[in-house]
Order: sequence, then C-alpha cells, then structure tokens
Amino acid sequence: MTDTVISSATKEIAIGFERPFVIIGERINPTGRKILAEEMKNGDYSRVQSDALAQVAAGAQMLDVNAGIPLADEPRILAECVQLVQSITDVPLSIDSSIVAALEAGLSVYKGKALVNSVTGEDERLETVLPLVKKYGAAVVAISNDETGISEDPDVRFAVAKKIVERARDHGISYADIVVDPLVMPIGAINTAGRQVFTLVRRLREELKVNTTCGASNVSFGMPNRHGLNAAFLTMAIGAGMTSAITNPLHAESLQAVLGADTMMGHDPHCARWIRQYREPAAEGAEAAGARGGREGRRRRAQ
Amino acid sequence: MTDTVISSATKEIAIGFERPFVIIGERINPTGRKILAEEMKNGDYSRVQSDALAQVAAGAQMLDVNAGIPLADEPRILAECVQLVQSITDVPLSIDSSIVAALEAGLSVYKGKALVNSVTGEDERLETVLPLVKKYGAAVVAISNDETGISEDPDVRFAVAKKIVERARDHGISYADIVVDPLVMPIGAINTAGRQVFTLVRRLREELKVNTTCGASNVSFGMPNRHGLNAAFLTMAIGAGMTSAITNPLHAESLQAVLGADTMMGHDPHCARWIRQYREPAAEGAEAAGARGGREGRRRRAQ
Repeated sequence: MTDTVISSATKEIAIGFERPFVIIGERINPTGRKILAEEMKNGDYSRVQSDALAQVAAGAQMLDVNAGIPLADEPRILAECVQLVQSITDVPLSIDSSIVAALEAGLSVYKGKALVNSVTGEDERLETVLPLVKKYGAAVVAISNDETGISEDPDVRFAVAKKIVERARDHGISYADIVVDPLVMPIGAINTAGRQVFTLVRRLREELKVNTTCGASNVSFGMPNRHGLNAAFLTMAIGAGMTSAITNPLHAESLQAVLGADTMMGHDPHCARWIRQYREPAAEGAEAAGARGGREGRRRRAQ
Repeated sequence: MTDTVISSATKEIAIGFERPFVIIGERINPTGRKILAEEMKNGDYSRVQSDALAQVAAGAQMLDVNAGIPLADEPRILAECVQLVQSITDVPLSIDSSIVAALEAGLSVYKGKALVNSVTGEDERLETVLPLVKKYGAAVVAISNDETGISEDPDVRFAVAKKIVERARDHGISYADIVVDPLVMPIGAINTAGRQVFTLVRRLREELKVNTTCGASNVSFGMPNRHGLNAAFLTMAIGAGMTSAITNPLHAESLQAVLGADTMMGHDPHCARWIRQYREPAAEGAEAAGARGGREGRRRRAQ
C-alpha cells in the first residue's frame, strides 16, 4: 500500500497501489520537436504554456518538464520552464533531465516536493543524483539500467531496481519516494516486451513495495496503429499493478485506456469519473441536453 | 498449458493458455433482436448467413449459434441454423441454448466437436447436460452459478466451477473440455466486478487448469461509451489469463483490444497479425500504396 506523495505549492498527488493511475503529461519535451526546441532556446515559452494547460485540461495529474536542447543553456531554460509552469498550473511536476546541473537548477526554484526524473543504476549517477534528491526532499524515478546497458533479462532489471532502492536508503531516501521505471522495449523488436514489464511490475510491487512508471509509447515503436498498442499496453500494465506513466493525455485512446482500466480496478468509485468523461459532450452550453443525447446514442451503438 | 480443442468438419481451433485469444462471434442470437427473431421463426435465415460471414471475416475463430425465440420450435430452428452455418463457414460452433432438447437437436446435426453453451451448477442441469456432452464428444461452457443464483462472492463462484469440473469428471469429461465462464457483472452496479473476474480467472487457471470464456459486454451495462469499457475489460481479462470470449468482432474497439492484448502477451509472433490488420486499408485495389500512406499517417499521429 505504498504512496509516493508529490506536491506543488498548493496541491498533493499520491501515486499509490490502491489509487487511480497517475498520468504524468509528457508533452513539455523538445526531444524530436524542432519548433519547440528552437522556441525554448530563444526564451519563447508560449508553447510550453499551452502544452501545460492542454495536458492538465485533458486529465494529467502531473506534468513532466524537460528542456534537453543540444548546445542550449539547459539549467537556465529548465528552471525558467519549471517556474512558468508552476505559475499557471497547480499540478506537481516531474523535473526531467540527464544533466545533474539542470536537475539542481529546476529543484532550486521548485515550490513543493518534486519528482526527479531520473536516476539510473550506475554508481556515478547514484552518487550525484541521490544526494540532490535528499537535499531537496524530492522523490525520484529510478530507471532499471546501469553500466551494462539495458538488460533483456527481467531478473537483471529487477536487480538494478533493487540496488537503486538500497542505495537510496543509504542516502536516507525511503522506498516510498522511489518510482521505478522497468523500461519498456519495442514489442516489434522483442516479442516478450509486454510480459517482461508486467512480470517486473508485479515483482517490484510485491517484493520491493515500490510504485512504478514508464514511458508507455516506446512499446509501439515502428508499428502501425501505435495508439491502439499503447492503449493495450497501458491497460494491461495497470492490471499488473503499474501506478503511473509518463504519457500524452491528449491522445484519446491512451486516456480512455487509463480511465477504463481504473474503472475495472475499482479505482473509480461509482464509475463517476468514467461517466463524467464520456457522458458529457465537449461542447459547452448544451451540456444537459447533449449529455442525454450522447448517452443514448452510445448506448444504441453498443447493442 | 490446457488446450480445449473444438472442431468443424474440416477445421480445429484450440482455446489454450499459450495461444491467441479466441473470439466466439456472438451475433447469431435473436435475444433483443426483434427482426432477426421474426425472420428465424419464419425460416428466413438470410441474416443468420450474413452475420456468420461478416463475423468470420472480421476475425471470429468460432461462432455462437442461439435460436432462443419465445413460442418457436427452438430445437428445429437451432438445428437448421447449425447446418446452414456449417455449410457456409468452416469455423467450429458453440451451440447455445438453455433448452436441453435444442442442444441435442443442434448436436445431432453438428459435424465435428462442438462447444455446448452451457451448463450451470444446478444438479438437475448437470445431470441432463453433461451426459449429452459426453454422448456427442463435445466440450462445454460451465457457468459458475447454481440453485442459489449468482454469488457476489468470487470464492462461491470458484466453488461452483470446481463442482462442475468434478461432476464432469464423473461423467468421463476431461477438465480440458470445460471452458468456465466466471460471470461478468455490470461494473456500474458492482464496482469490484472487474477485479472479481480477474482474480477468478487466475484461480481457475492455476488451480483448476481450465480455460475460460465470458460474455464481455455485460460489464458495461448501463454505462456511457460501452465499447471503451468493454475494450478495457477484455484487455485486462486477457492479461489475467482469460482465453476466449463470446463477443462481437464487428466492434472495432473490442477486436483491437483482443489483438492488442494478444500482441502484448507475446501471442502474435513478430506482431504479424497486428501489422496485417492495421497496416492495410480495408479498400481493395489500392492496397500497396494505401498501406504505406496509412502507416505513415498513423506514425505521424502517434508522435
């Protein structure tokens, strides 16, 4: 029954075994987004702002903020984006960088208890990132790879996760403040990628008692109908016990997969969230009439 | 690693732990379909024919045939439909009736090894249906309710399933020829309905070693966006180990849920079925060009 509590200045979110799945919005990330990268580099954060608002409106309970732009001043940009996003939304943030100075810059301006994304199992990373996590009283995403790379053997990935949890404890960080990413491989390359993750998630939960997260969309890399596969993966991962994911709530199929899986897990009391999401039409003004019409229409279709 | 083998005159299908999930097409059923009921009663089986062909084309590996029409000669109609469907498709059939004489009429004309749908846990039903299953060398769907009704307690439902498996053994029917339906309740009425089924499926598989099936769409009764909930349920049920369902492959979301879950379970080698299904457009003639366009379009959307 582990809860990982993350907060902003005014709001707490708990990632936990018996709670609704937490969607961490992935959009504020210039990787592969040339226009966004160029804008961020030039101090234009208008798209960061609109991505933040749109993801929260769509259902993200947290937002990931990444400023990984080659040859740019990443620590400064990340800190500015963290401040901007905190000024326009109240959701807790995941501060995402592979550069320790950028993580520290982000943490130093952050209001609340952040999620640091991420630490891996290499000794050098552990000894630089974990003290930072401790210093700022943050939680941290632990990615289960190390010096030897990403193992295809789930037992090795479990062992790396265990090592990180133990090392964190040495630094005074509780297992409850560690969210393990078991690493999702492309199913098109490794046919057992799905089962590997589901098995790992169960073990991480039962043996290490930790919460879990992942970058879900990697599973469908190179495949047609990626949204369909992402939805299947997310649904089954939640069934296996995964408790959060860094994903895009603006993709209707991923959002539906999460809400549907939460409902099936009994984490949506009285199905209230499902009904609210799918009964009422998006259009404003005609809500009451439209809701009735929409519900009937769907009910008819389903028969 | 239990396999339940069902056959037509020329084709075998195995429902099994390490096999692709088997969709048993549910459409040939006059319950709630007034026009179809009227037509079947008058000996017009044109819609039975088109429903059979459409479901097989959409991906049903088996078809359920039900002729439950009030005040009609159900045994004769069911037998005629079984013969008709066997004359136009080669998929094995599930012969579906609550009337023992109708089951027998269907079985007496069936070519191959049928799936009898169904037997429940009442002593009187067990002692009339099981001898029929044995006589015709069929397999049977075992529904886990009995004299006391449908229990909300999964342990009671497990006990009923166990009783049916044991009674079947007394009649010389192997557990491998029993496909248990753990009974799916509406999630809108019972918030734990999903987890109940997932827990039951795991126990049925691990302790009784039996295959499982269900009428999936009951889970979404009374809810908006039923297809979305059905998809979540099917996906998670497959993750929990369910091996077949009586459902409608013409619903794109249910079909996608099954194909996606199979892929995630590693039951779609090289993702060949997924790629075939979603790479090629439905339109004929422009397949090669369209496939490339469709794939690219989807890939772009997924980013």
